[in-house]
Amino acid sequence: MKGVKLSPSVMCANLTDLNGSVKELESLDVDYLHIDIIDGAFSPSMPLGIDTIKKLRDITDMDFDVHIMSLNNEMYIKELLAIGVQQISFHYESSLHVDRNINLIKKAGVDVGVALNPATSLSVLDYILPELDSVLLMLINPGFATDKNEKQVKYANQKIRDLKKIITDKKLDATIQVDGRVSMSSISELVKSGADNLVLGSTSLFSKENSLVENKKTIEGLINNSLKSSK
Amino acid sequence: MKGVKLSPSVMCANLTDLNGSVKELESLDVDYLHIDIIDGAFSPSMPLGIDTIKKLRDITDMDFDVHIMSLNNEMYIKELLAIGVQQISFHYESSLHVDRNINLIKKAGVDVGVALNPATSLSVLDYILPELDSVLLMLINPGFATDKNEKQVKYANQKIRDLKKIITDKKLDATIQVDGRVSMSSISELVKSGADNLVLGSTSLFSKENSLVENKKTIEGLINNSLKSSK
Amino acid sequence: MKGVKLSPSVMCANLTDLNGSVKELESLDVDYLHIDIIDGAFSPSMPLGIDTIKKLRDITDMDFDVHIMSLNNEMYIKELLAIGVQQISFHYESSLHVDRNINLIKKAGVDVGVALNPATSLSVLDYILPELDSVLLMLINPGFATDKNEKQVKYANQKIRDLKKIITDKKLDATIQVDGRVSMSSISELVKSGADNLVLGSTSLFSKENSLVENKKTIEGLINNSLKSSK
Amino acid sequence: MKGVKLSPSVMCANLTDLNGSVKELESLDVDYLHIDIIDGAFSPSMPLGIDTIKKLRDITDMDFDVHIMSLNNEMYIKELLAIGVQQISFHYESSLHVDRNINLIKKAGVDVGVALNPATSLSVLDYILPELDSVLLMLINPGFATDKNEKQVKYANQKIRDLKKIITDKKLDATIQVDGRVSMSSISELVKSGADNLVLGSTSLFSKENSLVENKKTIEGLINNSLKSSK
Amino acid sequence: MKGVKLSPSVMCANLTDLNGSVKELESLDVDYLHIDIIDGAFSPSMPLGIDTIKKLRDITDMDFDVHIMSLNNEMYIKELLAIGVQQISFHYESSLHVDRNINLIKKAGVDVGVALNPATSLSVLDYILPELDSVLLMLINPGFATDKNEKQVKYANQKIRDLKKIITDKKLDATIQVDGRVSMSSISELVKSGADNLVLGSTSLFSKENSLVENKKTIEGLINNSLKSSK
Amino acid sequence: MKGVKLSPSVMCANLTDLNGSVKELESLDVDYLHIDIIDGAFSPSMPLGIDTIKKLRDITDMDFDVHIMSLNNEMYIKELLAIGVQQISFHYESSLHVDRNINLIKKAGVDVGVALNPATSLSVLDYILPELDSVLLMLINPGFATDKNEKQVKYANQKIRDLKKIITDKKLDATIQVDGRVSMSSISELVKSGADNLVLGSTSLFSKENSLVENKKTIEGLINNSLKSSK
Repeated sequence: MKGVKLSPSVMCANLTDLNGSVKELESLDVDYLHIDIIDGAFSPSMPLGIDTIKKLRDITDMDFDVHIMSLNNEMYIKELLAIGVQQISFHYESSLHVDRNINLIKKAGVDVGVALNPATSLSVLDYILPELDSVLLMLINPGFATDKNEKQVKYANQKIRDLKKIITDKKLDATIQVDGRVSMSSISELVKSGADNLVLGSTSLFSKENSLVENKKTIEGLINNSLKSSK
Repeated sequence: MKGVKLSPSVMCANLTDLNGSVKELESLDVDYLHIDIIDGAFSPSMPLGIDTIKKLRDITDMDFDVHIMSLNNEMYIKELLAIGVQQISFHYESSLHVDRNINLIKKAGVDVGVALNPATSLSVLDYILPELDSVLLMLINPGFATDKNEKQVKYANQKIRDLKKIITDKKLDATIQVDGRVSMSSISELVKSGADNLVLGSTSLFSKENSLVENKKTIEGLINNSLKSSK
Repeated sequence: MKGVKLSPSVMCANLTDLNGSVKELESLDVDYLHIDIIDGAFSPSMPLGIDTIKKLRDITDMDFDVHIMSLNNEMYIKELLAIGVQQISFHYESSLHVDRNINLIKKAGVDVGVALNPATSLSVLDYILPELDSVLLMLINPGFATDKNEKQVKYANQKIRDLKKIITDKKLDATIQVDGRVSMSSISELVKSGADNLVLGSTSLFSKENSLVENKKTIEGLINNSLKSSK
Repeated sequence: MKGVKLSPSVMCANLTDLNGSVKELESLDVDYLHIDIIDGAFSPSMPLGIDTIKKLRDITDMDFDVHIMSLNNEMYIKELLAIGVQQISFHYESSLHVDRNINLIKKAGVDVGVALNPATSLSVLDYILPELDSVLLMLINPGFATDKNEKQVKYANQKIRDLKKIITDKKLDATIQVDGRVSMSSISELVKSGADNLVLGSTSLFSKENSLVENKKTIEGLINNSLKSSK
Repeated sequence: MKGVKLSPSVMCANLTDLNGSVKELESLDVDYLHIDIIDGAFSPSMPLGIDTIKKLRDITDMDFDVHIMSLNNEMYIKELLAIGVQQISFHYESSLHVDRNINLIKKAGVDVGVALNPATSLSVLDYILPELDSVLLMLINPGFATDKNEKQVKYANQKIRDLKKIITDKKLDATIQVDGRVSMSSISELVKSGADNLVLGSTSLFSKENSLVENKKTIEGLINNSLKSSK
Repeated sequence: MKGVKLSPSVMCANLTDLNGSVKELESLDVDYLHIDIIDGAFSPSMPLGIDTIKKLRDITDMDFDVHIMSLNNEMYIKELLAIGVQQISFHYESSLHVDRNINLIKKAGVDVGVALNPATSLSVLDYILPELDSVLLMLINPGFATDKNEKQVKYANQKIRDLKKIITDKKLDATIQVDGRVSMSSISELVKSGADNLVLGSTSLFSKENSLVENKKTIEGLINNSLKSSK
């Protein structure tokens, strides 16, 4: 799927049978395994641990795309670099030394993303955007995915379009990753707005009405149509 | 095994095949599944997440014995009570409202323990010991189990004996749980000193030279001999 | 007074006779009772407490307009929603999850405002402005009202005009509330610049040279003239 | 009432008519007006504010006995000394420089107390007890008075007796103040155990079944009987 | 050197012979002595202490230009004002009350600067720029100067040019100070871009290949050429 | 001076001529150079920096005895071990992992001390005392040495005697270091009480009425007499 990558979230996998889940995801031929790290302080939740990521690393060659939600980004960045992951996104809002975090990741040959809370202005990217491989736009408040009241923010597509325009105008390479209620009914518009990478969870790839294979096919269809229509 | 309970640590299980690991541990007939929760701030590590515990709860009826290492105990206590665990130990050193945390756990009908860092004096238990089901004595610095420089503290057995004497003198029921480099070579002395519950990891039950079944037999033998000799 | 609302601060009322003060304010027919909550950590002061607000709620049907100055906004938002208030403004600068706080308030049917320190750029409102009922522009540093060195910032009217232009250009409904040394001599200009809601304290409604009734009349006169001249 | 002082809590007064409440309390001839300051961070509540205390100071000559529950004791101590209070108790558990806080208060000619959470060992007083005018023993978890699940701790009387013995053995002058569910049914035993100062709230002086005057008479009767029986 | 001031860093002086170093710097006729204060929490380093600055103040009349890197700016601002310095820059990123800090410094008759981390957008200056004597643009991550991996950010000159344009367009007086790997090979471009004040360290004035006098001459030559060429 | 060591504080040296001061101290033949590191957060002061210590290390072979007053002990311990010092004392009160800090220092072959605030009970040493080379008893509140109101605590000698008794009874080797207003008039009693190491400042070795050599002679005389009389 040229231009739009798929990043299914490990949180929707079978946490008590990761071997099995990972094999299934490998056979799907997706682009990344998306992993959320939350420290319980950035947001009041802690989905899975560092040791689990270490063990996942041992059983698969999938590219790991990790989204850190922490008040202590440097510690987690270093842990993840030691484990060996392919992309790390950390939050601008909880980083004092944003440029330093970017350098730590790039120097290790790993793709770097900056994650933005829904309310955060794109002006925070003014100087760092050329340094980034991707920007992770949160479309719900990060760390609250299990809260049913969390709906995709109304300004989701506007924010994606704004960022796409900046990237295009400045002729940059950064991709736009979106996360939060990415669903069968929202994918078309997100892709048309400019999303390059979709974090997939229970409302899309892991939707229970169909198999992963069928869901993936549906998603690819939606993406293809969107890409055609937006040319 | 009257008087000495076994609490194997989930961290030594197969984190990518918890279904399989749990079945094996169930068949071993141990007393608890011991689970460490660390928030990355109390100690710089985060072994596994809350969502993993939720999924573990779905697949087994084993008693869960959780050791919280956090700067925000109340949040994790409430999460664990909602999941349904059988024992929760939290650290005295990171609690402002110790008595309140104890009440939160007891009121839910769950066994409550207070965990103490190696250096912490037993005087902190002066008024709460009668309220406790157990005291978790850390024999290494908590959260640093993977640091090879961490050795069981020299004063391990002295501290166990001191606590046993207090419990006996005051005619209380609290049990003594010990955690940190509990090994084939240290178990005898720990039990003689008064340990009632052993957290078992890579240097005992999960020792790689023998099977879990064989290791358990060895451990039971060591415990039996110690109990006999200390009568 | 169409377009400009009056929000007298409870801090200028008689704190040892709130019954009497509230009756007097009710009879004045103002729009809100403005209440400042400061936690001593956001700023080194703590004017009045949550329990006092609860009791105020029992004695009057006035609309409560609360300005939270805290490092822990979510706790205070929830307390205030439980008490029953009509508008809550919290600070952008001390919020990690800005969009979530907005949702918590809106979902409860309460008007929501975001408060900005004097130095804070309006770019922080880029995506949330359409979600807001009001923006509270602080014209002195919040929580330091009793410091005589605190003067209304020189850029007060410029900032109001800038925000008014954004709201008008985007055809939004958010009102502009201003707080800090709103006085008989500054009201005209503030209203001309675009202020929709004035927090009134010791330099305006509670100015000691005249009665509340007379002061209110003066204020209304100033507002009327400003509104006419700015048409 | 020789030996046992009464300290009714302002939180049980009429917060919207403090003038009236204070006059009633003055006429009761009690020893102190007890005031709780909580910063929302030590415990998740904030009963009343510093500005309310300032205004209270203007309307009465009653002795103010303030219990600070804060993570930033020095700030509140300085504010209270500036207002003019007669006794300040701060928490040992949230103070890094305990001895310094004691000195700040004593140097101002104000009585100083150290407050202890229920679980806190008396060993923390080893060196400072001779410097103190009083020790405030919390009999419920501080800041949670409105939580119905908070019951007076079972070890309340034991802790009072232990402290009384230390004070007597060392021939010191510190008085023992007790706070938390001090009620008509618990006062006798608390006084027999050694309590010298009772913080009075809704379960004693402000019990709604009788008038303040009648309740005070009942309390004095209970105290007198206890003092006689304990001679 | 009209337009471009030189601010050699005391960290490159001889810390065990400050008397000698200061005499040498005095004789060089530079504009400031640049002093970095880091609290170990803003960044993990603490170059020199407040007491050393006090003693420096006693031995020289040089203008002190202090760059605070701290999470508690107000404390350090007050200490420095008491010592008597000529310019203070504090970080926007670690200040809740930015406008208040500016006022504290200005009211004391001291020049005030706001320091920005490399990644920080210039939009944070929207309202405060007219109040400032200077803006300190960090060209490496602040507090990590001894880390060899820290290179001057690629966007250094772009950011200087952007800020220069804003200052010129708004007809303001704020000067642009730059800090971080200011070297013989980067000075020309930095000055052409608009830098008005150079913090000089081991890669410029204190370059070991030549004497301070010779290095200063070289720097002045580079500046002169740049200023000419940019007219 | 068998049994009592002298540790003059570098803060009383000439901070702008450390070369000269250190030579003078070397010629005095004292046991240590005492260095205070304060991070501005443990106490509101920051005497001198890590870089100054590094430079001091280059110019002398004196034994460095460092007293860390910080909320982040591990960072400073590691910095000091890298520099090369001979003794490090850190505060019990600001350490979560006390035993771990002790191990970090011992493993490096450096003497380790635990520092206690005046009010801190000796019970905190129950299990770690056998691991320690020294205990640093603060006789004023640490970090407030320049506050004239800080007087040596009344219980100074009692606390020294209590600790000496514990060390003697347990047959341990830990020495007792005392710090805070150690003066010509207090030394005799401190030594009789059991002090083994005196931190010397402006009220003893650096007393301005006499030369360092004369002051040292006086101190040695006081110590000798005390040691004789206490046999």
